[in-house]
Parts: sequence; C-alpha cells; structure tokens
Amino acid sequence: MAALVASTAASSVTTIIDGRLMIAIFICGAFVFGVSGGLAGVMKKLDFFGVIVLAGVVGLAGGAVRDSFLGIPAVAIFDWRVIVAVGAAGLVSFVAHEPLLRLHYPIQVLDAIGLSLFSVIGADISLRHHSGLLAAALLGMATGVSGGVIRDLLLTEVPQVLRGGLYAIPSLLASGLVVVGFALKTLSLAWYSVAVATCLVVRLVGIFLDLNLPQARDED
Amino acid sequence: MAALVASTAASSVTTIIDGRLMIAIFICGAFVFGVSGGLAGVMKKLDFFGVIVLAGVVGLAGGAVRDSFLGIPAVAIFDWRVIVAVGAAGLVSFVAHEPLLRLHYPIQVLDAIGLSLFSVIGADISLRHHSGLLAAALLGMATGVSGGVIRDLLLTEVPQVLRGGLYAIPSLLASGLVVVGFALKTLSLAWYSVAVATCLVVRLVGIFLDLNLPQARDED
Amino acid sequence: MAALVASTAASSVTTIIDGRLMIAIFICGAFVFGVSGGLAGVMKKLDFFGVIVLAGVVGLAGGAVRDSFLGIPAVAIFDWRVIVAVGAAGLVSFVAHEPLLRLHYPIQVLDAIGLSLFSVIGADISLRHHSGLLAAALLGMATGVSGGVIRDLLLTEVPQVLRGGLYAIPSLLASGLVVVGFALKTLSLAWYSVAVATCLVVRLVGIFLDLNLPQARDED
Repeated sequence: MAALVASTAASSVTTIIDGRLMIAIFICGAFVFGVSGGLAGVMKKLDFFGVIVLAGVVGLAGGAVRDSFLGIPAVAIFDWRVIVAVGAAGLVSFVAHEPLLRLHYPIQVLDAIGLSLFSVIGADISLRHHSGLLAAALLGMATGVSGGVIRDLLLTEVPQVLRGGLYAIPSLLASGLVVVGFALKTLSLAWYSVAVATCLVVRLVGIFLDLNLPQARDED
Repeated sequence: MAALVASTAASSVTTIIDGRLMIAIFICGAFVFGVSGGLAGVMKKLDFFGVIVLAGVVGLAGGAVRDSFLGIPAVAIFDWRVIVAVGAAGLVSFVAHEPLLRLHYPIQVLDAIGLSLFSVIGADISLRHHSGLLAAALLGMATGVSGGVIRDLLLTEVPQVLRGGLYAIPSLLASGLVVVGFALKTLSLAWYSVAVATCLVVRLVGIFLDLNLPQARDED
Repeated sequence: MAALVASTAASSVTTIIDGRLMIAIFICGAFVFGVSGGLAGVMKKLDFFGVIVLAGVVGLAGGAVRDSFLGIPAVAIFDWRVIVAVGAAGLVSFVAHEPLLRLHYPIQVLDAIGLSLFSVIGADISLRHHSGLLAAALLGMATGVSGGVIRDLLLTEVPQVLRGGLYAIPSLLASGLVVVGFALKTLSLAWYSVAVATCLVVRLVGIFLDLNLPQARDED
C-alpha cells in the first residue's frame, strides 16, 4: 500500500478510490486471477512449484505490465499482502483442484470479476501517473488481460484473448468508462461501480451466449 | 511527444533529431510494423480484436522493451498519435488483408523501412538517457527487432529473427553508426540518413538474395 | 558498475557486498547463463546471430526482469563488461559447441553456480531498492530463474523450471537467507557465502538424485 499511497500523494490528480479500497480490490483480483492460473498449471501437469508460480504470474502480471509501461516500480513488490494472496491462490489450486475444476462456470465468473476490477484499477492508476487518456484506457485493458496472456504464453498456447470470446472488449469498456468519467470530472464511487458492472455483465453475456468477434478469414 | 521533449530537456546530451521529427518517424515506423503484425494475426485466423492487438503490440513493443531497459515510461503512453497509428494499422490489416497479403515484397520493404527507422531512433533515445555506447547500439537493435520477436512469441513460433535471414545485422549496423557518430561528435541529419540507408540497403539485399548467417550445426 | 555504485550511494540500506565484488559476481553469472542459452540455441539450429542473442537474453534476462519490477534502469546497460561477457558466452557456445555439449554435468554445475550467484545478488539489489522482504526473496528467485524461462519461451517450450527438477527452490533458499540476514542485521560476506553454498548444494543434490516436486495430478 505504501506505493499506492505514495503515488497518490505524489500526484496532482484526484481520483475517488482511496488507497485502502484500491488495495483491497487489488488483493481480491489477484487472488481470483491466481486461482485461474494455478488451475491452468494443474491441468498442464506442472509440479507443485510450477502451479504456485503460474498463480503468482497470472495474479501479478497485469499490474507488472502496466507499471513497466508507466516506468514505476511494480506495486506488488511493496505490498506483501498481494504476494500472499497469489501464493494462497496457488496453494488452493494445487490442493483443491479436483472440486475446483468441476466448477467450470463459477470459475469463469470469478475470472470475470477479476477482469472487471483490474481493468478499472489499471485505468485509475494510469491516470494518476499522467498517462494520456487513450493510453489510460488501453493500460486498463492491458492490466485486465495480461495475466491471461502470460499464462497462455508460459503454457505455449496462442493467448485465448486473441483467438475468440468477448474478453478484451468488456475490459476496454470498463477502463474507457473510467477515462470518460475522469475527463468529465464526474468520477465517483458510483461511476466506478457502473464501470465494473458493465464489464462484468458484458463478459458474462459473452460467456453464456458464447459470443465471438468476427475473423477476417472466416470465409476461407 | 511530451515525454520525448521532456527527456530531451532533462538530458545534457545534444543529439540532432528534434522531438518533432522523431515523433513523426516513430509514428511511421509504428504504423508499418503494426501492419506487419496485423497481417500475421489475420493469417493465424485471430479474431478482429486479436488482429488489432497484434498490430498494437508489434508497433509498440520495440519502444516498450527499450524504455523498460532504460527504466523510463514507455513513450507511446504519452502520445495518442502513436496509439492511433497502430490502431489504424490493425484496422487496415483486418479490412484490406486480401490485397495486402498478395503484396509480399512491398510489405517486406515497408517492414525494412520500419526496422531502419526504429533502430536509429532506439539508439538515439538510449544515448539521451546515458546508456553506455555498447548498450545504445544493442538497445537500438532491440527497438528494431523486438516487435517481430513478440509477434512470433504470441503466435507460438520461434522468432524468425533467431532462425535466419539478415534482419538483426542491418539493424545493428544502423544503431552502431549512430553510436559511432555520437562518440565522434559528428552526428548530423546526414549522418542519421546514412545510418537509415545502410540498414535499409543491407536488409533489402538480404531479402532479395535470400542471405542467411551460418548455423553451428549445418553439417549435421 | 556506475549504476550499482549509484544505487548503493542513493540507498540508506547498508549491505555488505560492495559494487566491485558484485559486478564481478554478476559478470561470472551472466557468462555462465549465457553459455547455457547459447548451447540451447545451437541445439535448436539457430543461426550465428540467434545463438549470440539467446546467450545475451539468458545472461541478461534475470537482471532485466528484476530491474523492471523495481522500476530502475537495467544494470547491464550501464556496464559494457556484462554485455561483453554474454557476447563472449554466445561466441564460445557457437564455436565450441561440440566439446561443450558432450560435457553434460559440467554445464549443469556451471548453471547451478550461476543460479546461486544471481539469486543472492537479486535479493541484495532488491533490498537496496527498498522492496519488501517477501518481495526481495521472490525477486532474488526471479533473477535466478528468469533467464532460463525466457530461453525456453523463445524456443517455444514450456519453461523447464515449471515442469520439474529442483531449480527454483534452491534459488528461493538462497535469496531467503539473504533476506533473513538483512532482517536480523547479520549480513556479512560469510552469510552471503552460506546462501550461495546452500543453493548450490541443494541444486546439485537435485540434479544427481533427479529429485522432483510432486504434481497435483500424478494419480491420473
């Protein structure tokens, strides 16, 4: 939290989420994404350590990618609770993989919650660090989707987010709403909640209706 | 451009390219590389979003890798025009992939232009940030080739630049020439132009003659 | 060394390794890891440039990943000797790959030495930059294992460290020991040596006894 508070203090931008709420959201999102990474590792028959690492990478990658673009230290290295959260996610994935893997939809719903939270936080942190508006929307999306991209790369698969499903679009909607609210100076806790809810609903509709974006070469 | 101008102001190094020219070159290079990434995505049957993202990643990755090594914010997050350029590149790739994919050589020529521009800019920006001379030459090359490397990784292929063709060598020639000019204090617009032209010519000769570096185990 | 010395000067943390010793250790570790990367490239039939690049990436990646998390410039870009070391490693791999590839165990021993040195240095540098204690232990491990991870990714293989063998655990032991010594204020050259030796011994025992961590789905 030190880094978040420090970055807030250092910033002339006033955003509505205070450091305490943000870190709580961050920890929840990291845990949920961590479980998704850990389970992917279990399915690929990684060893105990591999499962823990994959949980950690997926839970932390979104923030790490964003912070690397922003040229600031990764938030997680200053907050042990985030690290503990992804470690616990890995442990849970390893120990309880059998019941968890039977719960297909519940896990996708948890992942959708993580996506919503990370997209909003990512845009918020980028704005605090004076990125451009367009960049903030994109970095919010990058915060949301990078964990999954790096999970797939480590398992040598073409990232799911590039291949199909409505995953990045709801993320971009959420981060875009934060940017619009910032530009209009109408950011409030309600505004953030609408952004989170929008992402969540669009993502869930995409999952249950199995919606996909068009491909350029569908006709082939 | 804010970041470029700021970084120039913060630097005691005087280089010849002013921020305005540099950003124009950067936008052109990002667009060209973006098209190369977008078309690779189309060929891999990614969906609309995947094509746009691949264009964005390939157009922005070179600069992002360099800036991460330099420990500075990625230039693109402060300049919306660069982001628009790679977005447009993705859109063009998606919409006009049929005629574009028929143009094999023209696209390779455009890619060679992007390589030349990025290699020179990469070395220049590294020198402004007081990297060592050797590091500046290498970071120039990294700026030029990283887009293609990350494109291939996202599509789970061993990066083309590692496997064959004269791709990194011309890039290194260009960035090396910038470093030599800097060390000799003879940098000028003409000097930069020679560096760009050297990279371009060597790359094009490599393409048309299908030149390759030796492999260690050719004899097997 | 400039960066290391500067970072030491800028820090209120007193650690025992001075910049001169650290850079010597860093150069040795980078060379050893570089050879491991170069030989992997030779076996994958990369061309001359690919072998050199793979040596460079594997030798430099650990530090680059750590420094990106810390939000500081990559140490190597300020020290040409590190770059020369990995370049030489690539050259040696390319030229002398036949005798080297016959030496299976000696190379694994060299790699274990690199792992031990990088893990200790990684934790030390993280502490100097005021990362949390837990984060320092993890960044030490990340410094040790990232070179191999990126080598495997570039060759499109699931990283070995995730699949089996005792590789990350000894690394984490070494970085953890540095953190404990730091917290207890008992860091000394002897303490560092114990950390290096612990990693080395556990890694070597793991190699020769072919030890593995359990998998979640061994029973399947």
